[in-house]
Amino acid sequence: MHGTDIRLARLFDDESGRSLITAYDHGQSFPLGARSGSPRRTLEQIVAGGPEGVLLTPGMLAQHADLFARRGAPSVVLRADWTLLDEPDKHELGERYRVLVDPAEAVALGADAIVMYLIARPTDGGMFADNVAAVARAAQQASRAGIPLIVETTLWGLRNEDRKDPERLATVSRIAAEIGAHAIKTEYVGDPEVQRGIVETVGDIPVLTLGGARGDDDAVITAAQGAIDGGASGLIFGRNIWMADDVVGTTQRLSAVTHGRVR
Amino acid sequence: MHGTDIRLARLFDDESGRSLITAYDHGQSFPLGARSGSPRRTLEQIVAGGPEGVLLTPGMLAQHADLFARRGAPSVVLRADWTLLDEPDKHELGERYRVLVDPAEAVALGADAIVMYLIARPTDGGMFADNVAAVARAAQQASRAGIPLIVETTLWGLRNEDRKDPERLATVSRIAAEIGAHAIKTEYVGDPEVQRGIVETVGDIPVLTLGGARGDDDAVITAAQGAIDGGASGLIFGRNIWMADDVVGTTQRLSAVTHGRVR
Amino acid sequence: MHGTDIRLARLFDDESGRSLITAYDHGQSFPLGARSGSPRRTLEQIVAGGPEGVLLTPGMLAQHADLFARRGAPSVVLRADWTLLDEPDKHELGERYRVLVDPAEAVALGADAIVMYLIARPTDGGMFADNVAAVARAAQQASRAGIPLIVETTLWGLRNEDRKDPERLATVSRIAAEIGAHAIKTEYVGDPEVQRGIVETVGDIPVLTLGGARGDDDAVITAAQGAIDGGASGLIFGRNIWMADDVVGTTQRLSAVTHGRVR
Amino acid sequence: MHGTDIRLARLFDDESGRSLITAYDHGQSFPLGARSGSPRRTLEQIVAGGPEGVLLTPGMLAQHADLFARRGAPSVVLRADWTLLDEPDKHELGERYRVLVDPAEAVALGADAIVMYLIARPTDGGMFADNVAAVARAAQQASRAGIPLIVETTLWGLRNEDRKDPERLATVSRIAAEIGAHAIKTEYVGDPEVQRGIVETVGDIPVLTLGGARGDDDAVITAAQGAIDGGASGLIFGRNIWMADDVVGTTQRLSAVTHGRVR
Amino acid sequence: MHGTDIRLARLFDDESGRSLITAYDHGQSFPLGARSGSPRRTLEQIVAGGPEGVLLTPGMLAQHADLFARRGAPSVVLRADWTLLDEPDKHELGERYRVLVDPAEAVALGADAIVMYLIARPTDGGMFADNVAAVARAAQQASRAGIPLIVETTLWGLRNEDRKDPERLATVSRIAAEIGAHAIKTEYVGDPEVQRGIVETVGDIPVLTLGGARGDDDAVITAAQGAIDGGASGLIFGRNIWMADDVVGTTQRLSAVTHGRVR
Repeated sequence: MHGTDIRLARLFDDESGRSLITAYDHGQSFPLGARSGSPRRTLEQIVAGGPEGVLLTPGMLAQHADLFARRGAPSVVLRADWTLLDEPDKHELGERYRVLVDPAEAVALGADAIVMYLIARPTDGGMFADNVAAVARAAQQASRAGIPLIVETTLWGLRNEDRKDPERLATVSRIAAEIGAHAIKTEYVGDPEVQRGIVETVGDIPVLTLGGARGDDDAVITAAQGAIDGGASGLIFGRNIWMADDVVGTTQRLSAVTHGRVR
Repeated sequence: MHGTDIRLARLFDDESGRSLITAYDHGQSFPLGARSGSPRRTLEQIVAGGPEGVLLTPGMLAQHADLFARRGAPSVVLRADWTLLDEPDKHELGERYRVLVDPAEAVALGADAIVMYLIARPTDGGMFADNVAAVARAAQQASRAGIPLIVETTLWGLRNEDRKDPERLATVSRIAAEIGAHAIKTEYVGDPEVQRGIVETVGDIPVLTLGGARGDDDAVITAAQGAIDGGASGLIFGRNIWMADDVVGTTQRLSAVTHGRVR
Repeated sequence: MHGTDIRLARLFDDESGRSLITAYDHGQSFPLGARSGSPRRTLEQIVAGGPEGVLLTPGMLAQHADLFARRGAPSVVLRADWTLLDEPDKHELGERYRVLVDPAEAVALGADAIVMYLIARPTDGGMFADNVAAVARAAQQASRAGIPLIVETTLWGLRNEDRKDPERLATVSRIAAEIGAHAIKTEYVGDPEVQRGIVETVGDIPVLTLGGARGDDDAVITAAQGAIDGGASGLIFGRNIWMADDVVGTTQRLSAVTHGRVR
Repeated sequence: MHGTDIRLARLFDDESGRSLITAYDHGQSFPLGARSGSPRRTLEQIVAGGPEGVLLTPGMLAQHADLFARRGAPSVVLRADWTLLDEPDKHELGERYRVLVDPAEAVALGADAIVMYLIARPTDGGMFADNVAAVARAAQQASRAGIPLIVETTLWGLRNEDRKDPERLATVSRIAAEIGAHAIKTEYVGDPEVQRGIVETVGDIPVLTLGGARGDDDAVITAAQGAIDGGASGLIFGRNIWMADDVVGTTQRLSAVTHGRVR
Repeated sequence: MHGTDIRLARLFDDESGRSLITAYDHGQSFPLGARSGSPRRTLEQIVAGGPEGVLLTPGMLAQHADLFARRGAPSVVLRADWTLLDEPDKHELGERYRVLVDPAEAVALGADAIVMYLIARPTDGGMFADNVAAVARAAQQASRAGIPLIVETTLWGLRNEDRKDPERLATVSRIAAEIGAHAIKTEYVGDPEVQRGIVETVGDIPVLTLGGARGDDDAVITAAQGAIDGGASGLIFGRNIWMADDVVGTTQRLSAVTHGRVR
């Protein structure tokens, strides 16, 4: 067992074997604007909810490192890359992808895991090829640095009509697994049995599902439960947690679903 | 506390917690022409004004290092990158951005902080993606080298109609904060309360406002006061200082505003 | 004799001097979809068949390393690069090639050999030039790292009408040999005597033939026998083995052909 | 004082504080053709003239190192980059710029200083941006390696109509100074007072003027004298010296002008 | 005297001061096809002819190292780069150039010298600029690694109408000399006196002429003699040797011409 395995195992609850990670890496790509308020206040609530991990960017980690510098604090999951997420910008400027931080830098920043995108079916084939190569390279570097790489597989490329197409999500998730992902973050496709097919095809690594745009509370819980029923090892939810009126309560409800303490 | 924090703290006046930095990095991008005279004479006046720091380029620092090589001299803030600023050139040649100096080289030159641009909404999406990646990489290198990185967030991209749009300045400033800026230099948007929203969204790092093209004396003081009222931790003013008839007096007036010794 | 030679020799059966390698690197480029099932189950059957080696990707090796971590297990042959294989994608996005893993990383992962593509006659001359340079560089790195490089020479470029043209396969295989391949994986052209010409022109290095898309059982055996009759030192077959109803039996039949224990 | 300063000072005559450098780096970009004769014979005459330095390329230095390997020999000033100089080629192929040698390699070759171009206003903005970045990087490397960098600022870009426009030469020379030049080589603009404006704007570094295409003897002397009168610290003349019928005599006449031993 | 000089001197016969090198690097770029036979048989004949050196690629050297691993064997001259040579391909794909091996790798492979192309007047100016930069960089690396770099200067660029134009060959050969070539391989232009102009303009480094496409026996001998008469220090002939019916005899005839043992 190597550092990568030790750190990956620590992301998951010892009893349930599952993990709830709150994502708060949106400000790097989304237009938050001048009324979004202090990130510290938001992060304090996220941490108070008690998820197993928090996904955030290098700058937010550096600014708020004190929130994570205590025994029992959530694991730090670092966003290591960047893509253009704003739809009008993507159409006007072309799709774009860049790596921002390498695994050794992530370890130096205090991170316990890193997340990188693998964005299927962009209009520019060079971007996909570069993305595949960047993730593969990072997987080797992460193994050397002793930190796990979670690959976020999406159908955000502009050639996709259905961003939850199970066949295409399975294919891109398998590609991520083949090139070295230590875990997968992907969409919940809406059907536990179909989701199970995705979970199986990536092999012996955990799959966590993402929350996406803010939805209705019941729908969010249903999706979370469906993902767990479909074999997911956890959730990485963002806007459905930190944009909620009650961040702590929402985290706790999703945590209960994640760890099977509901129904 | 690391070297980056020590050096960042030293940029700010111990009592007011704020900083006035005189920018003199224009010759690298602006057409100064054959009648601009000796940079030494200008820098001597800038230093005589007693700002907390002076922003200048590697070449000007190397030539005039003696002005900064004494106890109590202004901090040296180094311009580490380059962009095409001349508007006709930008239209004719396309927008361009390059990194010139890395953080370790800046430390070797005697700098106490570095400044890099993050230019929002250029027409070429590749330039923005490269700019994001370059700043993120420099933020990691700066942390390792022990020198703070001030990111100058602007709406200079040719897709902007309003270069002081508060929402877009907030968004690009937040991106800079997410990817690792240790401080922000940005526009004053003309309204202290709106400015406060920008200051809040970047989190626990100082925001300094820039002066821009030379303006009427009263307007300059009003903008400086508005920025401070809006929560700015200081000013980085250039042409409104060194193009003034009385460089020393102008510095002192802006210093008084910065440190709250007026009204 | 150097590590590269020792490891290359170990790929081949001591008695017959030949090798059967089962390829299972398809998931990195082919759309396997949500119903492809667990890779572990497939790999267990592949290993149970007892080939001399198994070709797989870095992620699949890392996940299933236990299957290869015992004395007498098949050699690990690592796919070190990536190309766009889906035909509609190639037409829509352009052909693409990237290196994913370097030889020293392959050794660290536990690999005994690496495989890289040399794809002749793509529509983009830059891709071919980059491919030649990447294989040549990897050949030098592989020699230094002590691991053999098998170059898979193909006519998959979109300028080819006949993907089994013997003249063009001979030319690209010779290019691979000139730039440093330690062994060649290429098509069986359907005629043992013509195949022998390809085997001769690459010089003193072994040639293994590939299986390609799944075919009729008898046709597969005939092609395997023809390749061996034409001087091939072995087979690297994938879909014709792991998509078979009886993976172990199919492996054994092909093994018998490879080592000349039939007829 | 650092190696860079020591070596820069040694380029200049101790008494006059000025320097005459004979440029013989033309063969790398100009079509010299089959009748240009032996470079050794030319270099022997250049050295016999007794200039303070000789500007030449890495290959010519390596071949004729013996001419410079004696006490009192001219300093070696190395051309470290390359550009397409032939006008028809520039129109047909686009303008091009490349760095050939880095400062540490120049020191290893025995050079005392290096020269690099900064070519203003090419039609391709990417070339100018790359040129700025290359010179800035070399300036830092040169400082580390302990060798001065002379930046040759020109208006050779195809967007220029007047290659001696004083405003534009001042601007590009100032850019060179800002990004770290230790000395400037530029055009004489034809008027000592206007030239003085260029000399002043680059600050506390020496300016040497270039000779350009071969001219009438009297015109050459007049231009040399004008440059010195305008504050130049020396001359870097090439074709007007080594294409002259009397290389030694011409060098001596220009040396007299340079060091103020005429009139 | 440095390793580069020692190894360069050893390429030349001690008595005549000249060298015959047999080139066998064609398989990397030419379509040899399925009937070209075993390279070992060809190389054995080449070596039996007793030339001073054999030019071959990294893969052919590695495969047939035993032929060169004995006292008195021909020197190993390694082809270190690659270009698209097939004319229809060049028109369809654009001209291409890549470096495959660096000088230190060549030394590790057992080479005594390396050969790189400098291809004048391609249609793409970026290719020529990259070629110049690659050769210049390799010249510095070769000097450090202690191995001589022979630059093969050609008019193979598609903008050339006459591939033996003496003026243009002189110019590109001089460029090669300026950027650091330790020796030149170029065309024989058909007239010893004109050839002498090329030999002179490159300075104090040896010039060897190339053989090109297979020609009539008498014409080949005449060209060889003309080159020697024009000041060439040797020949690098390929197809006119190894495609000959009597490889050993042809080598001996050309050797006699090279060393002046005929007439």
